[in-house]
Amino acid sequence: MTQFDKRNLSMVMDFYEMTMSYGYFCKGGDDVRVAFDVFFRAVPDKGGFAVFAGLEHVIEFVENLSFSEEDIAYFRAQHLFSEEFLTFLRGFRFRGDIYAVPEGTIIYPDEPLMTIVAPSIDAQLIETAVLAQINHQSLIATKAARIVRAAEGRRVSDFGARRAHNMDAATYGARAAYIGGVDMTATVSAGQQFGIPISGTMAHSWVMFFEDEYTAFRNYAEIYPQAAVLLVDTYDVLHTGIPNAIRTAHEVLEPQGCRLAGVRIDSGDLAYLSKRVRVMLDEAGLTDCKIILSNSLDEFTISSLLLQGAYVDGFGVGERLITAKSDPVFGAVYKLVAVEKDGVFLPRVKMSENVEKLTNPGRKDLYRIYDEHGSAVADMIALYGEQVDLAHPFRYVDPGKPWKNRFFEGCSAVPLRRLYVKDGKRVEKLPRLDEIRAHVRRQLTAEIWQEEQRFENPHRHYLDMTPAYYELKMGLLDEVRGKHR
Amino acid sequence: MTQFDKRNLSMVMDFYEMTMSYGYFCKGGDDVRVAFDVFFRAVPDKGGFAVFAGLEHVIEFVENLSFSEEDIAYFRAQHLFSEEFLTFLRGFRFRGDIYAVPEGTIIYPDEPLMTIVAPSIDAQLIETAVLAQINHQSLIATKAARIVRAAEGRRVSDFGARRAHNMDAATYGARAAYIGGVDMTATVSAGQQFGIPISGTMAHSWVMFFEDEYTAFRNYAEIYPQAAVLLVDTYDVLHTGIPNAIRTAHEVLEPQGCRLAGVRIDSGDLAYLSKRVRVMLDEAGLTDCKIILSNSLDEFTISSLLLQGAYVDGFGVGERLITAKSDPVFGAVYKLVAVEKDGVFLPRVKMSENVEKLTNPGRKDLYRIYDEHGSAVADMIALYGEQVDLAHPFRYVDPGKPWKNRFFEGCSAVPLRRLYVKDGKRVEKLPRLDEIRAHVRRQLTAEIWQEEQRFENPHRHYLDMTPAYYELKMGLLDEVRGKHR
Repeated sequence: MTQFDKRNLSMVMDFYEMTMSYGYFCKGGDDVRVAFDVFFRAVPDKGGFAVFAGLEHVIEFVENLSFSEEDIAYFRAQHLFSEEFLTFLRGFRFRGDIYAVPEGTIIYPDEPLMTIVAPSIDAQLIETAVLAQINHQSLIATKAARIVRAAEGRRVSDFGARRAHNMDAATYGARAAYIGGVDMTATVSAGQQFGIPISGTMAHSWVMFFEDEYTAFRNYAEIYPQAAVLLVDTYDVLHTGIPNAIRTAHEVLEPQGCRLAGVRIDSGDLAYLSKRVRVMLDEAGLTDCKIILSNSLDEFTISSLLLQGAYVDGFGVGERLITAKSDPVFGAVYKLVAVEKDGVFLPRVKMSENVEKLTNPGRKDLYRIYDEHGSAVADMIALYGEQVDLAHPFRYVDPGKPWKNRFFEGCSAVPLRRLYVKDGKRVEKLPRLDEIRAHVRRQLTAEIWQEEQRFENPHRHYLDMTPAYYELKMGLLDEVRGKHR
Repeated sequence: MTQFDKRNLSMVMDFYEMTMSYGYFCKGGDDVRVAFDVFFRAVPDKGGFAVFAGLEHVIEFVENLSFSEEDIAYFRAQHLFSEEFLTFLRGFRFRGDIYAVPEGTIIYPDEPLMTIVAPSIDAQLIETAVLAQINHQSLIATKAARIVRAAEGRRVSDFGARRAHNMDAATYGARAAYIGGVDMTATVSAGQQFGIPISGTMAHSWVMFFEDEYTAFRNYAEIYPQAAVLLVDTYDVLHTGIPNAIRTAHEVLEPQGCRLAGVRIDSGDLAYLSKRVRVMLDEAGLTDCKIILSNSLDEFTISSLLLQGAYVDGFGVGERLITAKSDPVFGAVYKLVAVEKDGVFLPRVKMSENVEKLTNPGRKDLYRIYDEHGSAVADMIALYGEQVDLAHPFRYVDPGKPWKNRFFEGCSAVPLRRLYVKDGKRVEKLPRLDEIRAHVRRQLTAEIWQEEQRFENPHRHYLDMTPAYYELKMGLLDEVRGKHR
């Protein structure tokens, strides 16, 4: 099989999912319904928020999950499983329910982004694929939102494919970057598959292919008179690149009534060069010629460039976006929170040695609390199905300071999650990619505190609990603590 | 189209490859053959060496490169290209030659790992896919080699799929990790596709599913008496996990004549816990029960654990391996080095503002120089086809100290690269995955200086040049410097 062939992504799982599933099958646990939560523990880059992305592909995954005869044969060859179980796998389809926050939701640590309610095997078999998709796309969408913020309204293009962690990372990473606010991508597969605007002009190889730089520029401008962005750093930006670009504008483009669209600088001291280049272009009458900068940029280097007064109209951002280089792991996890018994979901909790690995038990709902101005002041976990009415002052518990008596007043509570998959079938229409992207922008502009969006020491969004949920959690911890001593 | 469907990876390209290709097509450059080198500039993690991986999938890519009617329609919709060019794309197949070092070769900065010799369009259209594959797999193979080195002979398993940058990164990353020396993977798709040994036992969810920890352990051990590795940190490693594991060994396994295979600790102070656990297991007669540690491990944490005297038989390594977290970009680039004219490849050089971005021009050969003990003392760039005979003392140039008069004496020179693809057809048999892995191990054991393998301030491998190649490079720099002033 080649990388081009039809893929059976159902096999992208950790093998323990199969050994455990066989265990449930053998021990009569396969009909027991369980609930798993997906949540993450810390925002990458010590940021104040993250962007939820990848849900569309999770849903696509569970809809397509199945095992071929080759897969069955592979499992048989492990010499661990009974034929009865392999027969079960042969007809397997995902039978569960999936609750999730919509794609593009601004999310915070420790809250249940998704809940999978399904028979034990169904829930277990999708763990790795769900996490890989959500972790990857949320990572890149979050990084993109930071970079776009740093660019302060200038255009940002994704140039990252060549440094992505293989083909999917290039294509789905471009999608995630677009969700996070990037304006366009150079990655053609992402443009084709997701309808993202694509851009691209020339590499150094174009300039080096011809006898000299001017010939290369002239040839390009003759073919693309409307959209020539000339790469000016192959030999010497100030001594050859810009003079040749100006000559191209005057001798090739202006006689046809066209203007030079832009120049791109991909090496050297970008702040210094951009200022010199701006002066040279302006003096040549090319005041509308845009300056694009690229070369290992991210939110930190872009902020620095702007602080130095760089003249720049757009950024090409590659490896540091597509790998989220400064912090390349989005740590969403998939934890069992409840097991059904006699029609009731009994909460489960993991204690562990690390306090931060302690889970929030039980089935639950998630609300975002807005003040009268529409700002998101906190999120709140409630019992599953609990009535949350903020028409009157509503007491809540801050689990970090549970002794305080606090109330939401004049606020509204909006349920953050929806039921997307019911009994294995999609029951909610998914938004278009541009709608997801607009949703991110709207939240970051109108709902999410600027104090949560700054890069340095951002405000930590409150994750509160209803008194009833807090009591459930504390009671369960006491109970488990007793039982396991 | 879903992520499960047959993929056209030919569209994983930067759009500038297409705009430039159309440019060559319009300007009569499409019949001109060019040479591009693939090389990288710095070893990740400031290491002393890297492991070359991904070549098999590059070759597979160029063999399958083609454009469907949907692709052609997508390009047409960009309103930039002529119908004549789209017709050309419709029948397009890669027609070039590919030279490369074999997969699993230990590689160093600035040397030509691959050279693509092809018509300009053919060479340009594969740039991004070649780089993405080589960058990803070399990154992970290199990281794995470091982690395996730190583990000092203990088994290392890849647990990373859930934190990988999407599905390909999980599967191809597992392959690369295996090349780098990891012993097994938890990722089933990689086991199935590449024949890598897979492993997997239980998650915390298994332990939490049952009423209590002992029931969970007992159920597992009953199903898998030969291979039970029990996860002991769901509640409390020392107070419940290990006592329940010991009880399982005595009450479930030993009556059947089986032994407890192992315990895994996934949280807490791993060094401290492992020592306490070893004593508890030994006192219970389970001296052969292995201790597996996991939880955000990499070469640095593993070295630290061993320095602290942790008792450990194997490591599960996840996110920090599969994303190469501490330095997640392998920066291989694809640079034009020669353009054919009248049957001769004329060298080209990129000057740029950054000294480190200056390329080595022209077509060339690459040799590895071994001393009489078989140690790799240097690599050397020669002119393409240049006779390199080390039967007698051979003068070479260290480009960092070109004024020194130096000779290789008593050494041998082995050409590092082979011709894998000729006129678009594969002409060299590719090694099996286990052969690639053994090749890495052999080099790191017998050929590569330990001084290059240490983590801190490793020796920098010499990249020398033949006098003839050095003269070519210097002459060209002078020429270009003259022309572009």
